[in-house]
Amino acid sequence: MKTRIGILGYGNLGRGIECAIKHNDDMELVAVFTRRNPDDVKILTENVKVYSVNDVEDFKDKIDVMILCGGSATDLPEQTKKYAEMFNVIDSFDTHAKIPEHFADVDAAAKKSGKIGIISVGWDPGMFSLNRLYANAILTNGSDYTFWGKGVSQGHSDAIRRIDGVLDGKQYTIPVESALEAVRNGENPELTTKQKHTRECFVVAEEGADKARIESEIKNMPNYFADYDTTVHFITEEELKKNHSGIPHGGFVIRSGKTGWNDENTHIIEYSLKLDSNPEFTASVLVAYARAAARLNAEGQTGCKTVFDIAPAYLSAQSGEELRAHML
Amino acid sequence: MKTRIGILGYGNLGRGIECAIKHNDDMELVAVFTRRNPDDVKILTENVKVYSVNDVEDFKDKIDVMILCGGSATDLPEQTKKYAEMFNVIDSFDTHAKIPEHFADVDAAAKKSGKIGIISVGWDPGMFSLNRLYANAILTNGSDYTFWGKGVSQGHSDAIRRIDGVLDGKQYTIPVESALEAVRNGENPELTTKQKHTRECFVVAEEGADKARIESEIKNMPNYFADYDTTVHFITEEELKKNHSGIPHGGFVIRSGKTGWNDENTHIIEYSLKLDSNPEFTASVLVAYARAAARLNAEGQTGCKTVFDIAPAYLSAQSGEELRAHML
Repeated sequence: MKTRIGILGYGNLGRGIECAIKHNDDMELVAVFTRRNPDDVKILTENVKVYSVNDVEDFKDKIDVMILCGGSATDLPEQTKKYAEMFNVIDSFDTHAKIPEHFADVDAAAKKSGKIGIISVGWDPGMFSLNRLYANAILTNGSDYTFWGKGVSQGHSDAIRRIDGVLDGKQYTIPVESALEAVRNGENPELTTKQKHTRECFVVAEEGADKARIESEIKNMPNYFADYDTTVHFITEEELKKNHSGIPHGGFVIRSGKTGWNDENTHIIEYSLKLDSNPEFTASVLVAYARAAARLNAEGQTGCKTVFDIAPAYLSAQSGEELRAHML
Repeated sequence: MKTRIGILGYGNLGRGIECAIKHNDDMELVAVFTRRNPDDVKILTENVKVYSVNDVEDFKDKIDVMILCGGSATDLPEQTKKYAEMFNVIDSFDTHAKIPEHFADVDAAAKKSGKIGIISVGWDPGMFSLNRLYANAILTNGSDYTFWGKGVSQGHSDAIRRIDGVLDGKQYTIPVESALEAVRNGENPELTTKQKHTRECFVVAEEGADKARIESEIKNMPNYFADYDTTVHFITEEELKKNHSGIPHGGFVIRSGKTGWNDENTHIIEYSLKLDSNPEFTASVLVAYARAAARLNAEGQTGCKTVFDIAPAYLSAQSGEELRAHML
């Protein structure tokens, strides 16, 4: 029997989930739920309907895992604990500082309902976190480095678009190659986020706008750009659409550590992602963990979990025998 | 209370375990066991004794996890199942084709004794296998690539040393940079092991030996070198000692996959290791999984496990709360 999936929220991430289900033969999409008027939401899968989020309770026995595709700022802190009362749930909650609180909320709700809730699934938090954990457990004596990019930062792009005279804009976060190389060489440099990344902005200005003033406002914007090496390019709306409409991202998690009786040997563990579509990759991770959620709950487990708590075999459609024979 | 570790077999790997225990405050080395005369084995840790392997049963209640440091060809197929009758055990069994059989043997023994046995721990099998599994579960529509090196191949070095007129030799397996780049670019090339690697040999010849003949014998050796792009350098014994006495290794596990309704987006997941000391890194992985073995058994779990079956949090000395707060 296939694992029956529901999607709650149909933006870029929800659409990515839909695409990922298409790539997993043991999963099926049962329904999409929206806070909008369901008639206004067109999805890709034939013969699957869009419902109002108000009807979600009717699906209690028809969905094995509900994948929550809302935002971390206001949606997920309310939604995940709420829907854990009815479903196994999974989210991509990414406000790192609030994870302990979110975990406690979802754990209480899921233990009460006898369901599983998996939070903070994706790539950071998610696969990057896993790689930090594995690398730290192996090389206990070392230093961690996370670099993000090359990729689009939504927050920084929004900040550009709020400047007077700007019609549209996209910001790319780019790792500093020389910093990456120093880390890879085992030099253990001390690096701030600002020393590890540069920022490149593509801006569409209003006709007649003062470009020098816009560039200066961007480069001097506190927190966002002021302390970074920032480049600003003015382009046309057509160029922005043609060359910068994707949502690529990625990054690097590197741990450099020493072993040996006198710390005489250096080792570098590096994990990297190069993603054409940030939301589609995140969705693919969520769907793999949805498989795990269904299995864990079928075994009788309940409560909140993170990627740290789930044995890798639960993510794969293959059996233990198949994995040992072909992938170990 | 610390996790009490025993080491069975004191070669490069056993010594690496000893060094790794020094880097893990929650672990302690209780004893080293050897098939040699214990008086002939000098270890690094003060106040820890070397015993004959015949005395191992006396330590049944004094050791939480026995780390087996024998070879995969003849030692581990006998030892792991045997010592699983008395201890939680862990090994680095790396004969991929025989893993299912080894798993069944150890599983039966460990279930009978109520212990845990974790097999095939290290980096390949081990961390590379884990990365293959995670990447396959996420990107179900894609291709896998494993490159090994740059590193010393013991088997190929031995093959060189068997040639008449050769005093000593070391062989490095080196990934082909252009093949790596094609994979990273998402070109999905079809590549055999031979197309992915070159072989570089450093050879010390006997005085007056026919170097042209030795070079030809190496380059034309079936299976080992004949189909590879092989380079042979003749050097002095002093140069070999000075520049080639380390045991470095490493490699790359890359998965390239497509997502999107029409497979329109490409993603690259890459995991790589650059290791100064192959045995010390393998040992560091084993020690992290020894922590997991002790915990799993304390929870009442028994039988054989692989890295696929163990939730990442079990490897870390940190608590779930600490991991969620600082590493997620």
